Parts: sequence; C-alpha cells; structure tokens
Amino acid sequence: MNLSKQQLWEKFQKNYTEYPSLGLAVDLSRMNFKDSFFPSMEKRVEKAFRAMADLEKGAIANPDEHRMVGHYWLRNPALAPEPSITKEIEVTIQSIKTFSGQVHAGEIHGKGGPFKNLLLIGIGGSALGPEFVAHALGKPKADKLRFYALDNTDPDGIDQVFAEIGPELSQTLCIVVSKSGGTKETRNGMLETKAVYRTSNLNFAEHAVAVTQEGSELDKLATAEHWIRRFPMWDWVGGRTSELSAVGLLPAALQGINISDLLEGAKACDIATRTDNVTCNPSMQLSLAWYRAGNGKGDKNMVILPYKDRLELFSKYLQQLIMESLGKEKDITGRTVEQGICVFGNKGSSDQHSYIQQLRDGLNNFFVTFIEVLQDREGSSPEVDPKITSGDYLEGFLLGTRQALFEKNRESLTLTIDRVSPFSVGVLIALFERAVGFYASLVEINAYHQPGVEAGKKAASIVIQLQKEVLEYFGANKAKTSTAAQISAAIKKPDEVETVFKICTHLAANKGRGIVRTPTQSPTAATFMSI
Amino acid sequence: MNLSKQQLWEKFQKNYTEYPSLGLAVDLSRMNFKDSFFPSMEKRVEKAFRAMADLEKGAIANPDEHRMVGHYWLRNPALAPEPSITKEIEVTIQSIKTFSGQVHAGEIHGKGGPFKNLLLIGIGGSALGPEFVAHALGKPKADKLRFYALDNTDPDGIDQVFAEIGPELSQTLCIVVSKSGGTKETRNGMLETKAVYRTSNLNFAEHAVAVTQEGSELDKLATAEHWIRRFPMWDWVGGRTSELSAVGLLPAALQGINISDLLEGAKACDIATRTDNVTCNPSMQLSLAWYRAGNGKGDKNMVILPYKDRLELFSKYLQQLIMESLGKEKDITGRTVEQGICVFGNKGSSDQHSYIQQLRDGLNNFFVTFIEVLQDREGSSPEVDPKITSGDYLEGFLLGTRQALFEKNRESLTLTIDRVSPFSVGVLIALFERAVGFYASLVEINAYHQPGVEAGKKAASIVIQLQKEVLEYFGANKAKTSTAAQISAAIKKPDEVETVFKICTHLAANKGRGIVRTPTQSPTAATFMSI
Repeated sequence: MNLSKQQLWEKFQKNYTEYPSLGLAVDLSRMNFKDSFFPSMEKRVEKAFRAMADLEKGAIANPDEHRMVGHYWLRNPALAPEPSITKEIEVTIQSIKTFSGQVHAGEIHGKGGPFKNLLLIGIGGSALGPEFVAHALGKPKADKLRFYALDNTDPDGIDQVFAEIGPELSQTLCIVVSKSGGTKETRNGMLETKAVYRTSNLNFAEHAVAVTQEGSELDKLATAEHWIRRFPMWDWVGGRTSELSAVGLLPAALQGINISDLLEGAKACDIATRTDNVTCNPSMQLSLAWYRAGNGKGDKNMVILPYKDRLELFSKYLQQLIMESLGKEKDITGRTVEQGICVFGNKGSSDQHSYIQQLRDGLNNFFVTFIEVLQDREGSSPEVDPKITSGDYLEGFLLGTRQALFEKNRESLTLTIDRVSPFSVGVLIALFERAVGFYASLVEINAYHQPGVEAGKKAASIVIQLQKEVLEYFGANKAKTSTAAQISAAIKKPDEVETVFKICTHLAANKGRGIVRTPTQSPTAATFMSI
Repeated sequence: MNLSKQQLWEKFQKNYTEYPSLGLAVDLSRMNFKDSFFPSMEKRVEKAFRAMADLEKGAIANPDEHRMVGHYWLRNPALAPEPSITKEIEVTIQSIKTFSGQVHAGEIHGKGGPFKNLLLIGIGGSALGPEFVAHALGKPKADKLRFYALDNTDPDGIDQVFAEIGPELSQTLCIVVSKSGGTKETRNGMLETKAVYRTSNLNFAEHAVAVTQEGSELDKLATAEHWIRRFPMWDWVGGRTSELSAVGLLPAALQGINISDLLEGAKACDIATRTDNVTCNPSMQLSLAWYRAGNGKGDKNMVILPYKDRLELFSKYLQQLIMESLGKEKDITGRTVEQGICVFGNKGSSDQHSYIQQLRDGLNNFFVTFIEVLQDREGSSPEVDPKITSGDYLEGFLLGTRQALFEKNRESLTLTIDRVSPFSVGVLIALFERAVGFYASLVEINAYHQPGVEAGKKAASIVIQLQKEVLEYFGANKAKTSTAAQISAAIKKPDEVETVFKICTHLAANKGRGIVRTPTQSPTAATFMSI
C-alpha cells in the first residue's frame, strides 16, 4: 500500500486506540486490512465472545482433558463458578502474602539465617512466567530475595547455578514447581539440589517449598519430608496460564514484587477485554490482526519486539503461550488442520542490528508486534545530544524501524504501555491470554490442551529404559568389545540399534560411566567396552 | 516418509559423519532428501567452493561495499593476501594476550584497584558474539573478570547494569566496541557510562579501552582522552563475523577464556570445510540441507535447539549471522529475490515444554537443528534413577523429540560436539560462518552487506531531528496548549503529524521533560503544553 503521510495519519487516527484504564494503546495502522475486514468476521467474533463467556462461567472449555479453564478467576475470585474455588484462590493469595512477609521478616529462615535467594525449580509453564516477571520487575541488588532458576535437566547448567549461589545455599529458599508433580526435568533438578544440600551438610527439606496439585507425587514427598510449606496448583489452571496462580505469585512476592498490582492489572485488562465492541477490545483487536496477517492459518511468523530490556523475555513467554496453545493438529471437530503461529523475538533496538536486515529486505513472511514503553527510566536522563536522551533514541529507532518496514510493505502492530510496572505486566499477561483464547475460537481449535508434548516424553522414556538394558548388558559383559549392532541384538532389540549407538556414544563421553569407545573406519561400527 | 527402524539405521549409517579432528559429528538422516540431491547440486556447489576460495585469497567478495571479506584470516593469519594484514592480525592477538595478562596481574588497574569486571558497550555484531561466548565459556564466580554488557540504548536497561555493578565501578574495565565508531546506541551507552563515572568522581578514560577502526570518531575520542588502550577493527571484517577479531577475543581473554583454543577450533574447522568433497565437508552439508529444506527460498524456519544451557545464546548469535547475511532483496545480478531464512530457538529440553507442541502437531513450516553435547558436566553425576543421571535424561529428551518430530514428517538435523570448550565454540562459529557463505553462493546473493539496516537508522535520525524542532516549538510557546496537528503545522512539517504525536506523547510520559498531555475524547487530538 502506497499511502501518503496524510493518508497514513487518517489511518492512524482510525486505528489507534487508547485504553486509559490500562495504561495501554493499540495501533493497528500498519496492518494492511480494509475497513470491511472487522465486519466480515462478525459471526466468528460473536462465537468467540460466547465461548469465552462460557469458559469464564466454568464450562468444560478443554473438552479433551475434560477440564474447566479458570485462569481468569485467579485475579477475580468472585467470578469462579463455585464458592469453594473462590475461597481457595483467596486463601492461597493471602497465604502467599503472609508467607512472604514471614520470610522477609526472617521469621521463616534457612539454616544459615534469613533467606537471601530463591531458587525456582521448574520447567516450561512452571518457569517461563516466573522468569519473565522476575526479569521484568526485579531490581538488581535491591530485591528482597534474589531470583535463580533451574529450568532444565542439564547437569552443567545446574552446576553453574550452584556455583553462582555459592556459600549462600543455607540462605536459599527452593521452590519446586510442578503441577502434575511428575515432570522429570523438575524432579531431576530437585534431586540434584538435594544432593548439593546434602554435600553441604544441610537439610534440603528445611529450605524447600512445593507448588503442586494436592495429592501429587511431589505433594506427598513434601508432606512426608516436612518441607516448609506447600502451595496449591489446580486442575483448572494450565501451565502456560499459571503465572497468576501460586506458580508465579509466590516467587514474585518473595522477590518483593507487588503481586496485588500484578493481579489488579490482569483484572483490569480482563474487564476491558470482555466488551463485545470489537474496536475497543484490545485482545480481540490482536486476535483479529493475527488472523488477518496469517489468513487464519499462521502464514506469517509473529516477531515480538519490545523496545525495553526488561521485556526481553516476553517473547519467550509468548512463544509458549501462543505456540503451545495454537499449534494443534486437529480442530474441535477432529478435522486435521495443523494450525499455529510461529513466535520469536528479543528486544529493540538491539535486534535492529541483527535480523531486521532480513525483515526489511528479505522474506516477507512475518508481522512485527512492537511494544513501546513510554517511561524511559526512573529519574531523569543525561543529554546525549542537546536536549536529546538515550530514551529519545530508543523511541526514534522504534518509529524508524516501523517506518522502514512499512515502506517495504512489511506489516506491524504497536502496543504502547506507560511503563513497566507490576500493573502493566499484569495487563500484558491478561491481554495475550485472552487474545490467544479468542484466536483459538476464530480458527476453531482447543487452546487448552497439548497432546503433542506427550509424544516426546514417551519417546524419551523409551530411551531411558533402553539405556538401563544397555547398562545391564555391559554389566554382564565386562571387558568385551561390542558394536551397537551386537549390543542391540544381544538385548533382543535389534530395531533400536541407532538409539543404542547414540546411548553408548553418550556414555563413553562421560568419564565415570565406565564405557570406552574405540572408533573404526565407519563411525557407526565403533566398538564399546565396559571397563 | 514411513521408514522402518532398520531402514532408518541404514539411512543413519549413510548420513552420519564424524569429524574426529573437530570433535564434531553431523547427522542428516532425518532430512528428507534423496540420494540424488547432492549430485543434482554439483554445479552450484562447485561455484560456491570457487567463490569461497577466491574470498579467502582476498577477492572483493563484498562488491557493493567494495570490500574484502577476511574473517577466515583471523585464525590463520598466514592466509591473508598481504603480509601487512598477516602482521596486523598477529600483533593484535599478541597485544590482547599481553594486555589481559597485565590486567589479570593488576599491573593495569582501575582507580579502586585490580579490575574485577568488564563492561562491554556495543550492539549487534559488537555484542552478540561476545555475549554468546561469555555465556558459553564463563565460570560463575571463577572468571578472572566478570562479564557485563550494555547492548542497547534503553535508559532503564543501562540503570539495571550499573545497579548490578554497584560500588565496583572503580574496578570495572569498559570496552567500547564499534567498528565504524559512529553507532548511536553504543555512543549513547558510552555517554551514559561516562556520566555514571563522573557522578562517582571517577575518570572514565582511566577505565576505558576502545575497539574500533583506525581514524574513526571513537578512535579519535579515545586518543584525545587518553583511554587505556585502543585495539583495531578492520575494514575487511564484518560485524557479524567479528567474534574472532579483537571484538570477541579481547573480552574473552579478559574473562579468562583460552583464546588460543578458540582460534585453534575455528582454524581446524576452516581446514575441514575447505575440502571439495561434499559428503565430508560439514559446512557444505549444512548449507545443502538448508537449501533442500527451504527449496533454496527459505520456505522453512530454522529452529536451533542446543540441549545445553551454555549454548542458549547460540540461536541469538545465529539469528544475526544467518538472517543478516542471507536476508537480502536482490541477488548478485540485481534481480529481486527477497531471500533469507528465519532462525529462532532457545534450548532443550526446556523448549520441549513450550513451543515443541506446535512443532510436532501444528504448522510444518520449519526444520530443527539439534545440538547434542556429549559431555554432561565436569565431574561425575548423582543418580536420579538407578544408574541413570540428569544428563541421560537430557540425552533421552533430545532423542525422543527428534523421534517424535520425525514420526510426523518434521525434519531435523543433529550436530554433535564432544563438550562445550573454547575449541568447540571456535568450531561452531567457523562451521556456521562458512555454511552461510556457501549458502549465499548457492542462492547467488551477497552475504556480506546489510543495506536494509541503514533505512531504519535514517528514519530514526529523521525522528530525532523532528524532536529537536518540536522542543524548539515548545520553548517558544510556553504554557500554550497545542495538538500534534497544530505543532506539525507550526514547524512547517504538516506531513509529520503522526510522528509529532508520538514524540509528544513520549515526552509527556517522562517527568523532567516539561511537557504535559491532556487527553481528549479522540486520543489523537490530545493537547500538549510546555510547563
């Protein structure tokens, strides 16, 4: 579209919406849709609003797993469909505040004194939200507890975190987070952490709290070992929308972040996004823009570009929220659709000196979501040119890049927030949660399950089982050299020869596992021996 | 492709290549190409090898900017086309080692004593490499200098870094990195840093070194102000391939990383990737796999999944290296082609609990590059199940996800490295540098310029200029309320009304700028007043 600047101003005036109660503005002026687009979607939009209203009232919005979807109740407990749920939410928020207060006051403390650090042990939905919020709202050296995380089952990664914590282990509060209580990576992180505490002659249980569903394996363990405290997760909260449950609120409160404001921001955004007037509902604006950009089929990648260092992890958080929710094989009627939207991004203007070259000149297979933050910093700025600050440059780069992309017919939308605060972070979380829910309705998929995640886990457990059999083989055949083909035949799993080869190669690379690899001309014919 | 496990083993044996001299293996068995694919590319491949050989000999491989492309000389100075270049490289590496030794010995120190921290001030190609390497090879609390970076012009982000450094400012060595010496974000970061030093009654120049081209603005400033030292950047090294120049080597050496091994790894990989035998040239294997996956047009996104926390920033590094190199509008003959490959990713198995749902079930618009690291950690691992370690699970998740994706016809390739070491990081950098160069030849584009980056910069400088005029208007019209339309008319830039509106809204959100915004019914008719 070749619009003159005046035409663009007309378009901007029509497509720029401010939401003063949220400290938010949405600008769709750089998306190439016609005025007729919104009306053309009316029927789907109505259906999406209805589905969302039902969901909020407690419908089984996740039919495959026969679950309610209740993350909107977390910031407005009165909405919950049953008084018992309302109460549980309220009690949990209060107990998080009380507990954090006791920790901050030193009444609850570690073996070595008041807690200085918190170590979150969790993965995926139990880590990405807390990590995003910790980074967005933390104050280096001024947080009440310093935030660390074990969010993987990488042994070296675990070692690095404990090297960082160093001698403060006895003043580190460990929060083990797993909704199901059975996630292997999290369990491994916990077991490794226990081993580290043991080595330091410390009792892990005296430094540990659990966030999990009542009755889960983790819940039972924490009870049996007398951990400091247990906080609940609920069946009706999904991992990727759990930031405003104990999963996110507990670490945030401990870090010293105002969780009431976080909840207030989300609640305010929920109220604003319940209106069925499409043009003043920011979540519906987003989901319609996504629909238009990718033809309702995810034809365009979504590039998230917050111009603010604190929001750098937001794209990672949104990767999960959006891709895990929308990346589905079947629609709700069971038809194969292979839906989704690819999401990536880091931050501006840094990314401008990286892949924006391709965005402007190369493949036109994306649309950008700029996030503009009006407040530059706490306090005033030095001038870097007469009357010009670093923040003015940041703003200038955002506007310049938006312009440079538009000139080349690359689409973007811009979200503006006043500042990065607990309230505005709550707004952003709620804004995208609802946009994702709406979009799922528009394209008729279930946003609340994740059937594909299981496949990788199952395949992994087969590998672990196979490794046990390989190790048994080595135990029974000391000092004998065997190829992967020979081993897989001996354990009667000849089909698994490639995986056996990979397992043996991995074992041999780790001293102490007692396996030696001897290369041959053909690498896959390498021999392995137990010593 | 529905292959039996035995057929897959055949395919694996054929498509799995080990490179013992590099500690590297490449597995293309999960890419769906036929045996005929490599031969069908023979002519293009030959041309790519020829172009690369010319480049290494000093051809003007970046014709638009009339520049040589010399990053391969950095790790093998004898290759350089002129003895003076050989000498410059050798002298620079030696001076980095000497300088780092003097810093570590406390002979060169800050006002407050021996340097404890290094603060890299740079963006894009002057930050992504150093950040990747610092994270991949750093040892928390054991590094000789602790690594910090200012890689943006975000005022709040700058504040956070200085809050982290705190009272150690007088023991912090600042490295200002800008090839051109005129990058605004870097200049702003430097000016903000100077202001912080001044506030602490410290002389910035006594804590600063520069990495820049001789004669640049930055070079002149560092000379005039008597900074501790200046290190050269050269015309024939591009930002995104500068990690093995002073840009990357200086911070790495200061941090305590063995830069000789880093260079050795890259040099060894260069040697291995010079062979014109396609099936045992890992860089050509990669670039052909990319070509096949995306039909030579970038039809598929490249998802980078290192199963190792230390390599988490590699995908960000590769985003720049690949997208800035390949994302081009024109081919070398001037034809419009809009090339590129989208790159994103974080780390496994964390991402498995995030967007892998979409990869397996949703849009099939990508291929994965798994990076497997054989060594789990320094030292031995505790058991998390009988005879099973956290690292076995990490390996199991990698193999499981690869399998789960392949079942659904999602392609992947796997790179295996022995361990994360300076040598292997050097290998990885060189491996992808050459793969990118080859791919650019295959699709006939110039990989070494970035014409699109300029557009955003120019548009940004127009915004900054406009802001100056807006501020002059406010200076001359104290206490007068004006709309953006009125201001843009008054400064005789009526076409810029939207940008004026954005500038004024940004100014009004920052106390101390003296602008008050009064909202109206229509947000774009808001009035602004200087107070």
